[in-house]
Amino acid sequence: MRVLGVDPGMTRCGVGVVDGAPGRTLTMVHVEVIRTPADADVGDRLMRLDDALTAAIARYAPDVVAVERVFSQQNVRTVMGTAQVSGLAILAATRAGCAVAMHTPSEVKAAVTGSGSADKAQVGAMVRRLLKLADTPRPADAADALALAICQLWRGAAQSRLAAAVAGSGSGSGSGSAKMAR
Amino acid sequence: MRVLGVDPGMTRCGVGVVDGAPGRTLTMVHVEVIRTPADADVGDRLMRLDDALTAAIARYAPDVVAVERVFSQQNVRTVMGTAQVSGLAILAATRAGCAVAMHTPSEVKAAVTGSGSADKAQVGAMVRRLLKLADTPRPADAADALALAICQLWRGAAQSRLAAAVAGSGSGSGSGSAKMAR
Repeated sequence: MRVLGVDPGMTRCGVGVVDGAPGRTLTMVHVEVIRTPADADVGDRLMRLDDALTAAIARYAPDVVAVERVFSQQNVRTVMGTAQVSGLAILAATRAGCAVAMHTPSEVKAAVTGSGSADKAQVGAMVRRLLKLADTPRPADAADALALAICQLWRGAAQSRLAAAVAGSGSGSGSGSAKMAR
Repeated sequence: MRVLGVDPGMTRCGVGVVDGAPGRTLTMVHVEVIRTPADADVGDRLMRLDDALTAAIARYAPDVVAVERVFSQQNVRTVMGTAQVSGLAILAATRAGCAVAMHTPSEVKAAVTGSGSADKAQVGAMVRRLLKLADTPRPADAADALALAICQLWRGAAQSRLAAAVAGSGSGSGSGSAKMAR
């Protein structure tokens, strides 16, 4: 199973690709941070991000694209741009025929560190250890994108079984917020 | 000058096309509300909206696409979806080579009614009068999209002169938040 994680952001958007499955070894396939200049037009920034996200999904052909779920409680100044980029990532994944999953920051932290309130350094250190990397991925957006992918690899299987059970009972698609990982 | 206004929304997204210029008669060219089912996957909803927005921009070939500026102070439950749709509209306009302008809800209300705190009914009534329509456009998303287009037609010329003056003085692009109307 291959998951492409997206930590959405207008200035820095993390993309991390991980192969693995629950109980199996995790392998980092790719990590990058897409950057756009803060002084560029919003439309040009979104176009660059869309091009880069679409290219990464085409190149790495993930089974699932996992996107951080954005809350308006986060930094008010940047949250609108973050939400716009998350929408582009979901759209690019859907257009490519990938399943889409969303996880909150605390779900991701809990999945990789055991604590939903872990800090950036703890997340980065655990990502480094889990993926057997020589160094902690930097900037934090890179580590966060990989952590999202790991979270999906570990939680996704359980969510898929749940979604399948719910679908089998004829009562709908489960979470209702996104297509669940297959 | 032709402006296509977008009142972004995941469940109902208003699109209104108006021809006009400051001091000239305004003519409604088109109005529609793109709807997506609340129980569909987010990716599928975004894809339908992207397809419809891209088609409307291609069909009506506006000089400027005016998008409502989303604030996180609005309804927290729906604002993330609204921001995602606004991002798609800005991207679709940029890809089509259109200028993009953004206006806050109070700027739009002030432009068409004279009051930044006008209610939906006042906005709808003024849109009807300004465009010489037999009925008030419904739902409110349709009237809001037309109001956005009118706001841009009236305010855009002044903003363009300002942006040109700023650009001519070599100190940048003015607002920095979006490409200004040409």
